[in-house]
Amino acid sequence: MAGAIAYVSRDTDGQLWNKALQAGLGPVDFRTLETLGDKADIEVVLAWKPPAGLIASFPNVRMIVSLGMGVDHLLADDRLPEGVPITRIMDDGLVGQMSEYAIYWALRHHRDIDKYAASQRARQWKPEEFVDTIHRRIGILGLGTIGQDTANKIAALGFPTAGWSRTQKTLPGIETFHGLDGFTRLLARSDILIDVLPLTRDTRGLLDAKAFAALPKGAFFINMARGGHVVDEALLAALDSGHLAGAVLDVFNQEPLPPEHRYWTHPKVRVTPHIAGATNPRTASPGVIENIKRLRTGGATNPRTASPGVIENIKRLRTGKPLIHTVDPKSGY
Amino acid sequence: MAGAIAYVSRDTDGQLWNKALQAGLGPVDFRTLETLGDKADIEVVLAWKPPAGLIASFPNVRMIVSLGMGVDHLLADDRLPEGVPITRIMDDGLVGQMSEYAIYWALRHHRDIDKYAASQRARQWKPEEFVDTIHRRIGILGLGTIGQDTANKIAALGFPTAGWSRTQKTLPGIETFHGLDGFTRLLARSDILIDVLPLTRDTRGLLDAKAFAALPKGAFFINMARGGHVVDEALLAALDSGHLAGAVLDVFNQEPLPPEHRYWTHPKVRVTPHIAGATNPRTASPGVIENIKRLRTGGATNPRTASPGVIENIKRLRTGKPLIHTVDPKSGY
Repeated sequence: MAGAIAYVSRDTDGQLWNKALQAGLGPVDFRTLETLGDKADIEVVLAWKPPAGLIASFPNVRMIVSLGMGVDHLLADDRLPEGVPITRIMDDGLVGQMSEYAIYWALRHHRDIDKYAASQRARQWKPEEFVDTIHRRIGILGLGTIGQDTANKIAALGFPTAGWSRTQKTLPGIETFHGLDGFTRLLARSDILIDVLPLTRDTRGLLDAKAFAALPKGAFFINMARGGHVVDEALLAALDSGHLAGAVLDVFNQEPLPPEHRYWTHPKVRVTPHIAGATNPRTASPGVIENIKRLRTGGATNPRTASPGVIENIKRLRTGKPLIHTVDPKSGY
Repeated sequence: MAGAIAYVSRDTDGQLWNKALQAGLGPVDFRTLETLGDKADIEVVLAWKPPAGLIASFPNVRMIVSLGMGVDHLLADDRLPEGVPITRIMDDGLVGQMSEYAIYWALRHHRDIDKYAASQRARQWKPEEFVDTIHRRIGILGLGTIGQDTANKIAALGFPTAGWSRTQKTLPGIETFHGLDGFTRLLARSDILIDVLPLTRDTRGLLDAKAFAALPKGAFFINMARGGHVVDEALLAALDSGHLAGAVLDVFNQEPLPPEHRYWTHPKVRVTPHIAGATNPRTASPGVIENIKRLRTGGATNPRTASPGVIENIKRLRTGKPLIHTVDPKSGY
C-alpha cells in the first residue's frame, strides 16, 4: 500500500476528505493530528494552518497540499522541508463563489441599491441618475484562477475590465497591467477595485494611503483576498475624507474582526465574516436534496470540487509525472 | 426627401433621437407632438404611450416604432392603423441593465446578504450556512431578448437555470418549458423566479395565488417586467404566510407606487422605481467623460444603443426589404 495521507487541520475532522480521496484513489491510509502514528509513514500532507515545524518532522513526506487556495497559512511555517513540492487545492466551487461575491458588491455600488433602499424607507418613487455600464471601470488586483474568473464574468456583463498581476499576463477582453508602474495605472482607471491577490511579502500593506489616493474620487473597494494587504488607517482616512465612496471587506488584519473595530460601525463599510469564498460544513437549505456538507477550512475548500486536482496530483506523484497547481514558496503563491 | 419621422412621446423632447437618426440617415424631417405639421407627411412614427387614435390619423404612415421594448403602452391604443407594421427598439444597453438587475437581486438572496447586514449591525462575526450555487435553481419567465440574456448570464455563474416561454424554445445550457403545463413545472423547480414577460392578455394576472403556491417554499420573486402580471393580494399573502422568502418589485399595477401601498413597508419586499432597465437623460457621474445622455421614456430607450435597429428598419422599409424586430399585435409582443 502507498504511504499515508496526513490531514493536518484543527478546523475540521477531515472525514469528507477521507471519503473523497478513497473514492478517487481506492483504500487510503488516512491520518489526522489525533491518529498520526509513525511520522515516517506520511507520504502526503493535506494542511490548513499546520503547527510550525510539524511537516518538517515527517521524514518521508513527498508532497504538501494546501487546503486553501491561498497558501499564506502554510508558508507561515518557516520550517517547511526544502525541496518537497507544495500544491494547493483548486476549487471550482470556491472560485465561483468568489466571483459571485465580487459581482454582487460591484453591482450594488454600480446600481445605487443603497439609495433605493433609502427611498423605499421614505416611500419615495425616485429614479437615480446612473453611470452606464460601459463607463463603469472595474479593476481587479490579482489575475490567478480567481482573478481571471472574476474578470471574465465581470467583463461579460459589459464593464470595462482590467486586471493587474506581478508578471505580465494577456487575457482576451481584459486590459492587463503589471509591475509597480502598472499598479498605479490600474488604480487610476478603477472606479471599482477588487482585491484577489495572494498575501505575500510583496503584497502585505500594498494598499496604503498612496494606493487609495491613486484611485479615482468616488471609487469603491472590495477586499475578498487578505486583510494583510490593507493599511486599515489609510483605508478609513480615504473613506472619511470622501475620496472613496465605500468599501466591502470580507477579510481583515485580525479575524474574527474585533467587536470594537471601527469597520463594524463605519457607515461606508460593509463587513462580511470571511465568507466570499468560504464554505460551510452543514447543509444549508432543508428543501434542497443534495446540499453539500463542506469543510470549514477558513480558506476554504470543498472536497467535491477540490478533490479531483488533489487526486490527480497523488496519481502523478506516484507515476513520476509533473505535478499541477504547484506553489512557488519564493513568490508566495 | 423621404417622409417625415414623428416623435410621439410626452416624456422627452426627442432631440437625442433626432440626432441619432440624422447621424445614421442623413437629413431627417423630424417632427414632435408640438411640430407635427401636415399629418400626411408622416412616414414613420416613433411612439411612447401615444394618445389613442393619433397614429391612425396619419394617412401615409408606413411603420410604427415602439420606443420601449415592451409594447403594451402602444397596443393600448385600440385604433392603431391595420396593416402598418409595428417594430420596437432593441436596446443592448437596456438589456444588459435588466440582466444586471436580476443578477444583483438573485445574488443578494443567494448569498444571504441581508443576514450579514444584520450581523454587522450586531458586530457579530457569523458565517451563515448556504446553498451551493449548483443547487440554487433559477427560473426565468419569458425568453425574449431580455430573458435570454438574463438566462445566459445567470447560467454562466453556475446556477441551474430554466426559462419559460409561450411557445417552445431551445437554448443551450438552459432548461426550457413552455405552455400552461410547463408554466407550473417551471415554477415548481424555481428557488428564485425572475419575471421578464411582456404584458399581454395572456400574462395579465398570471402570477396569482395558484402560481405563487406552485413555487417551492422559501422561494424568492423578482419582477422586472410589468406589475400587471401580479395579483398583489396573492403575492402579499404568499409573503405573509412564509411561503415566499421575499420579493423584489421594480414594476407595479400602479406607477408610481402609491405612498400608502403595503409594498413600501413590507419587511420582505424591496421596491425600486421602475429602474431595472430604465435610463436617465442626464449624465450621472461628473467624473466619467462620456456619460450618455439618455432618454427617459419609462420603458426606456437609449438612442445610442437602440438607434441602429431603427435606422436599419427605415432603410429596409425604403428599399422594400423585410423589417426586423417586428411586433405581432395579436400575441401582444
